[in-house]
Amino acid sequence: MSLPIDPTLRPFFDPTGIAVIGASTAPTKLGFGVARNLAQSGYPGAIHFVNPRGGRLLERPIYPTIADVPDPVDLAVIIVPAPQVAETLAAVGRRGIRAAIIASGGFRETGPAGAALEQECLRVAREHAIRLIGPNCVGLINTHRPLDTTFLPPPGPTPGDVAFLSHSGAICAAVIDWARGQGFGLSHLISLGNQIDVRETDTLAAVAADPHTKVITLYLEGIDDGRRFVRTAREVTRHKPVIALKVGRYSSGRRAVASHTGALAGAESAFNAAFRRAGVIRANTVEELFDWAKALAWCPLPAGPEVAVLTNAGGPGVTAADALESHGLRLAALRPETEAALRAALPPDASVRNPVDMLAAATAGQYVESLRILLDDPGVHSVMVILPPPPMESAGGVARALIPNIFAANKPVVIALMGERMIQEAVEYFRAAHVPEYRFPERAASALAVLTERAERMRADAGDIVRPPLTDTRPDEARAALDAYRAAAGDAADFLPYEVVDSLLAAYGIPTPRVALATTADEAVDLAWQLGFPVALKVASPDIVHKTEAGGVLLNLVEPDAVEQGFAAILSNARAAAPAARVDGVYVQRMITFGQEVIVGAVQDPQFGPVVMFGSGGVEVEGLRDVEFCLAPVSEGEAAGLLASTWAGRRLAGFRNLPPADRAAILGIIRRLGQLAADFPELSEIELNPVRVLPEGQGAYAVDARARLGDDR
Amino acid sequence: MSLPIDPTLRPFFDPTGIAVIGASTAPTKLGFGVARNLAQSGYPGAIHFVNPRGGRLLERPIYPTIADVPDPVDLAVIIVPAPQVAETLAAVGRRGIRAAIIASGGFRETGPAGAALEQECLRVAREHAIRLIGPNCVGLINTHRPLDTTFLPPPGPTPGDVAFLSHSGAICAAVIDWARGQGFGLSHLISLGNQIDVRETDTLAAVAADPHTKVITLYLEGIDDGRRFVRTAREVTRHKPVIALKVGRYSSGRRAVASHTGALAGAESAFNAAFRRAGVIRANTVEELFDWAKALAWCPLPAGPEVAVLTNAGGPGVTAADALESHGLRLAALRPETEAALRAALPPDASVRNPVDMLAAATAGQYVESLRILLDDPGVHSVMVILPPPPMESAGGVARALIPNIFAANKPVVIALMGERMIQEAVEYFRAAHVPEYRFPERAASALAVLTERAERMRADAGDIVRPPLTDTRPDEARAALDAYRAAAGDAADFLPYEVVDSLLAAYGIPTPRVALATTADEAVDLAWQLGFPVALKVASPDIVHKTEAGGVLLNLVEPDAVEQGFAAILSNARAAAPAARVDGVYVQRMITFGQEVIVGAVQDPQFGPVVMFGSGGVEVEGLRDVEFCLAPVSEGEAAGLLASTWAGRRLAGFRNLPPADRAAILGIIRRLGQLAADFPELSEIELNPVRVLPEGQGAYAVDARARLGDDR
Repeated sequence: MSLPIDPTLRPFFDPTGIAVIGASTAPTKLGFGVARNLAQSGYPGAIHFVNPRGGRLLERPIYPTIADVPDPVDLAVIIVPAPQVAETLAAVGRRGIRAAIIASGGFRETGPAGAALEQECLRVAREHAIRLIGPNCVGLINTHRPLDTTFLPPPGPTPGDVAFLSHSGAICAAVIDWARGQGFGLSHLISLGNQIDVRETDTLAAVAADPHTKVITLYLEGIDDGRRFVRTAREVTRHKPVIALKVGRYSSGRRAVASHTGALAGAESAFNAAFRRAGVIRANTVEELFDWAKALAWCPLPAGPEVAVLTNAGGPGVTAADALESHGLRLAALRPETEAALRAALPPDASVRNPVDMLAAATAGQYVESLRILLDDPGVHSVMVILPPPPMESAGGVARALIPNIFAANKPVVIALMGERMIQEAVEYFRAAHVPEYRFPERAASALAVLTERAERMRADAGDIVRPPLTDTRPDEARAALDAYRAAAGDAADFLPYEVVDSLLAAYGIPTPRVALATTADEAVDLAWQLGFPVALKVASPDIVHKTEAGGVLLNLVEPDAVEQGFAAILSNARAAAPAARVDGVYVQRMITFGQEVIVGAVQDPQFGPVVMFGSGGVEVEGLRDVEFCLAPVSEGEAAGLLASTWAGRRLAGFRNLPPADRAAILGIIRRLGQLAADFPELSEIELNPVRVLPEGQGAYAVDARARLGDDR
Repeated sequence: MSLPIDPTLRPFFDPTGIAVIGASTAPTKLGFGVARNLAQSGYPGAIHFVNPRGGRLLERPIYPTIADVPDPVDLAVIIVPAPQVAETLAAVGRRGIRAAIIASGGFRETGPAGAALEQECLRVAREHAIRLIGPNCVGLINTHRPLDTTFLPPPGPTPGDVAFLSHSGAICAAVIDWARGQGFGLSHLISLGNQIDVRETDTLAAVAADPHTKVITLYLEGIDDGRRFVRTAREVTRHKPVIALKVGRYSSGRRAVASHTGALAGAESAFNAAFRRAGVIRANTVEELFDWAKALAWCPLPAGPEVAVLTNAGGPGVTAADALESHGLRLAALRPETEAALRAALPPDASVRNPVDMLAAATAGQYVESLRILLDDPGVHSVMVILPPPPMESAGGVARALIPNIFAANKPVVIALMGERMIQEAVEYFRAAHVPEYRFPERAASALAVLTERAERMRADAGDIVRPPLTDTRPDEARAALDAYRAAAGDAADFLPYEVVDSLLAAYGIPTPRVALATTADEAVDLAWQLGFPVALKVASPDIVHKTEAGGVLLNLVEPDAVEQGFAAILSNARAAAPAARVDGVYVQRMITFGQEVIVGAVQDPQFGPVVMFGSGGVEVEGLRDVEFCLAPVSEGEAAGLLASTWAGRRLAGFRNLPPADRAAILGIIRRLGQLAADFPELSEIELNPVRVLPEGQGAYAVDARARLGDDR
C-alpha cells in the first residue's frame, strides 16, 4: 500500500512496553479493569503498573510514579481523574514516552471546564511531542499482537480479520459482544474518544497496513478534516474495503442558505458524495456493518451481478429473487447445459430454472451437486444457497457437506438460513468455516449486493481523482474580476452582480447567453437589436435575489416595442417590490428558448469543502429533489455518474420528442463549475439555474447564474 | 366484530373429531408425522387414523377406510398420493364429513397433469359440499385449541397471540422455529397451499374472530379476489392489526400498456394501494413481520409521534434519534419539569435533554426512575430504552427492575439491547414478560413507527370507504355514448375518439376546455373565433396515439392566420408520420395556458380492479415517477392523501410565485375519474394529462385525455 504510515503512531500498534498509570487493586475501578485486560491479553511486551499508593497487582510491582518505571516502555495508558491528566502527561513526557492513551473521562463532553482541561492536555502533549488517543475513550484492542488496553468486561473479541474504529466508546462493548455472538472475530478495535490529537483518518491509515485486517469498519459521528479523510480512505479502499456507519444524520444544524443548491446540500449529501469519492461503503445499521464486513472478509469478489439461487422451497426462492432485484442484482439466466445437468441431478418435479428449487426432500448430496453445477456456469457470478429446516436431513449435515465445495469455489457463495434453533448447528459450522450465513434471504441478498458493488468499484477505480484535468480555465482572470469587485464593494457578504458572475463563468469557460446592461429604454432596444431577438429583460440589482417574484424578469420579447415597454415595467415592478433596493438598470439577454433545463450548483461544505450539485432545474428544484452531489473538482467519470443518477441526466440521452442533448457540453459545465468552486472557496454558493442543454453538438448555456460570497472570505 | 364467519369453515378451527387419512406407521413418512403431531398436540377431540393396511398407531386403531371411522368426526386430513385424493375425497363426502385438509403435493405445482387432478378434487368437493384447505399445504396449527395437523418436525410453536397465514408451506417450518428462537408464540398457523377452495381472505376473517389472536401476519404470494380481500381486511383491521409480507414483487409479468398510468401502475402499486385502503401494514422482510407483530401484540398504542429515548451512552442515543426521524417519528421536547426531575435523579454530567443520557455508570434504579419521569411527561407518547452491556450492573438486573414499570405504563416502551451474549439474560426476562426487545436501536425505532402508524390509522378510520358519495354523475349518459361508439366501431380494442372521451368526462362532471372538430381550415378559423383565442390544434385520428411526436399538435395560436396555416401543417405532418392512419380532421380547442399541470389516470388492475393515479403530469411523468395510487372509487380523504404524498399535490398549496391552486376542483376530478373507472371496467386505461389546476376558486381542466377499451370488454 502506498500510504505513508506515520512513525509516531507505531507505539499504539506495536509498543515494546506499556505503563498503566492509575492501575488499581480495587476490582470495581476502571484502573483495575485496564490492568487486568492488559495482563490477560497475552501481550508479549513489558507491562508496568503505576499508582502513588504502590503495592503489587496481578503479580507485578506497582511503581509510585512513571519516572520509576524501568525500560522498555513506550506507551502510557492513563486512567486518573481528569484534573490530574495534564500533570501526568508531563511526567510521561519527561520519562521519554511519546504515545499515550487517555481513557479518563471528564473533559469536553462535560462542559467548558472539561474542555479547558482537554486543551491543557493537548498543550502539554505538544510540548513533549506526545501523540494522544482520547481522552474519554475506551482504548484499543489488537487481537493479533495481542494487546488490550481497555477496561471493558471480558471476554474480549476473538481474533479475526475485521477492524472496528469508533467515535463512540459505548458502542465498543456492544460490538465486541455482538461479534462474539455472531461468531466472527476482530483484528483491531480502536475507541477514539474526543480525538484531540489522533483522529479517525490517522488510525484508518495505520490499521489498513495491518496484514491481519481484511475489512475496516468505521462508526463515525462526524469528520474533522473531510478532505484528508477522503484522500486517505480513497487510497485505503484501493486495497481493502472500508464500511462506514455515520450517525448523527438528522442532528446537523441548518445553515442559512440563499440558493436551491444550498438548501438541498445538507451534511448528508456531502457525506454521501465523500464516501462515494473515497470508495467507502455506507451502512445504515450496525447489523449491516457486520453483515457486509463478513462477506467482504470471507468471499472472493463476483465478476458481475448475475446471481443463482439454490433452494428447496418455492416461497423463499421468490423472496430471494425480490430481494436481489431490489438491490440491483439479477437472477442469472442459466445456460441450457446447466439446466440439463440440474435436470439429471434432481427429481423430475424440481424446477431447474433460476431460482433452482430442488423441492423439500432435497438431500445434502443434491445440494452439493446442484451448487457445483451452478458454479460451473460462466454466466453465474455468485450463488445464494437457501436452507430452511429441511424435513429430511439436518441443516447441519447439509452445511457440513457444502462447506468444502464453497471453499473450492472462486465465486462468492452466501447462505440464507431460515429459522433459529433447528438451524443452529448449521450456523456453527458455517461460522467456523468462515462462510457468510444470514437469517432469511433478504440479508444475504444485501451482502451479495455489497460484494458486487465492491467488485465494480475495484474494476472502475483505475484512474486518478480528477481525470482528465481541465487545462483551459483562467483562474487569474477570475481572481482579478473578484478582487476588483471586492475592492469596490467592501466586505459585506453579498450576492455578486451579474457582470462579476459572468466574468467568473467566462474565465472558467462556462458558456452563457450574451448579455449587456441597459440603463435606458433606448439602450435596451439597441442592445436587443445587437444581441438578436428574442431577448429577456432582467432587473439589475444586487439586492433583489428572487427576481421573478419581484416582477423583475420578462421573457421572450420578440420585438423592439416590447423591449421598450418592458424596460419601464421592470423598473416600476422593482420599485414596488423592493423600494429600498439599489437598481442599476436592466440586463438585456439573448434568450435560449429551447434545450433541456438542468441545474448545476456548488456550495462549500464545512467538512468536505466544495461540493457540486446536478439535477432537474427550474423553480421546482427543491420540490422535485431530483439532484445528486459530488465532491469538487469533478472527474469526467464522476460527472457522468451525476447524469446517470438523476432523471434530469438520463433524459439528456433523448426522451420522447426531445433529441439527444449535448452531453459533452453539460459534462464540461459540471466539471468547470466544480473547478471554479474548488479554486475559490470564498464563493459560498454558486448556482447555474437553468442551464439549457441544446441538441448534440450545439452546446449548453447557463441561462441564469448567481453567486455569493461567504461570511468567511 | 361485524364480520360474518362462514359456518362451513368451523370444522377447521373447532373440529369435534379428526381423521388422518394416509396415517402411516413408518416414521419417515409424512403420514406418520401428521398422526404424531396431532396425537401429541393435546387436541381434546377424537383422533382417528385411516390406512387400508390397518393395524395400530400411537395407541389407536387404524381403520381400513374412512367409512369405518366412528363418530365424532368432522374434519379429514388427507395425506395420500395425489392420484388417489379425489377418490378419497368422495369417500370423505359419503362419510358425511364436510371439511378436508389436503396435505398431499403433486398437483398444479407439478404441471398440467397435476392441475387436472386438482380440478377433479375441486369437482368432487363441490359435489359433496366439502370445504378444502390445500392441496400442497402443510396444514394448520391452533395452539390454544390445541390442534396440529401438520407433519412438521417438532417442537411446534409455543402458544401466543400472533396468527400466521401463509401461501408458502416452506416458510412455515422456518417461522415456527424462528418464533421459538425469538421467544414469542403463535395462536394459529395456517398453510394455504394451492388454495383451490379456502383462500387467504376466508381464513383471515375466521382467525380474526379468535379471542387469543391479537395480531395477524400474512405471507402472501398473490391475491385471487383483491376486492374481497380489501373489504374483509378493512373490517378486520378496525379491530386487530394485520401485517403482510407480499413476495413476488419483481416477478409480475408486464402487460402491454399505452398510457403513462398503465406504465407506472404495476402490480406493486395496486398492492400498496390495496393495503393502504385495507389498513394492512406492509412488511418487507420476515424479520420486520415479527418485529412489528410483537410490538403490536404487546404494547398499548401511542397517542402521537413524540418519542423519548433513555440511554446510558451518547452514540446509541444519536443512532436512535437518526432511526426515529428516518421513520417519521420525532424526539419529544421534554417539559421543563421533566428535565428538572431528571436533573435531580441523575449525576450532574448526565444529559437531561432528549435523548436522555444517564452516562455509563447508570444504575438499575436510575433506569427505573428516569423511565418513570419520562412516562409522566404528557408530551412523551412512547419511550425507547437503550441498554448496552452496562459496565456496572448486569443487563439482566436492569431488565428485571424495568419490567414492572413498563407493565404499569399506558404508553408503549420498547427496548433496544446492544450486544449478544452479555445481554442474553435481559433478553430472556423481557421476552418472558412480553416486553418487545430488539437488537440495536434501528429495529426498535421501526417497531415504534409501526405502533404510531397503527394508532393514527385507528384515529383516522372512522368513516366509510367512500365519503362523501358523488351524487351528480350521469353513468347512463356515459353508457349511451360508449354503446353508441361501440355499435358503430365494432369490437376492435382501441383508443376512443376524443368526442367519446369528452362525453364520458362530461357525464362524470370532469371539466375540459371547450373543443370542436374542424374538417376544413375555414371551419377551424371559425371555431377558434367562437371558442376564444388562444387555441390549440390537435390532429383527430384514432390511430395516432402520440400526437405530439407525430407533429399533430400546435399550441398557443393567437390569431386566425396561424390557425389556417396550422390546420394544413397538421394534416401534412400526420400524413408523413403515419401514412396509414385515419385522419378525421383537426380538433380546435381553447387553450388553458396557465395553472399547475398534474396527471390523473386510472387503470384496471387484474387483482384489485380500478386504480387511480395522481401526480406530476406533462410528458415526463414516467421519468419523474412523482405519482401515487389509490383504489377506486376514491374517498375525499384518500384523494387528499394522494395530494399529500406527491410533490405535484403538495405544490398545489402554493409555491414561490404560484398562488394556491383550486384543491377542491382537483380533488373532485380525482374522485370523478375514480368513479368513472369503477363504473366502466371495460375502460382499461383512462388518462387526463395534463390537468391544469387554476388558482383557488377558478377550477381545474383536463386539457388532454385519452381512454382505451380493454381486451376483455
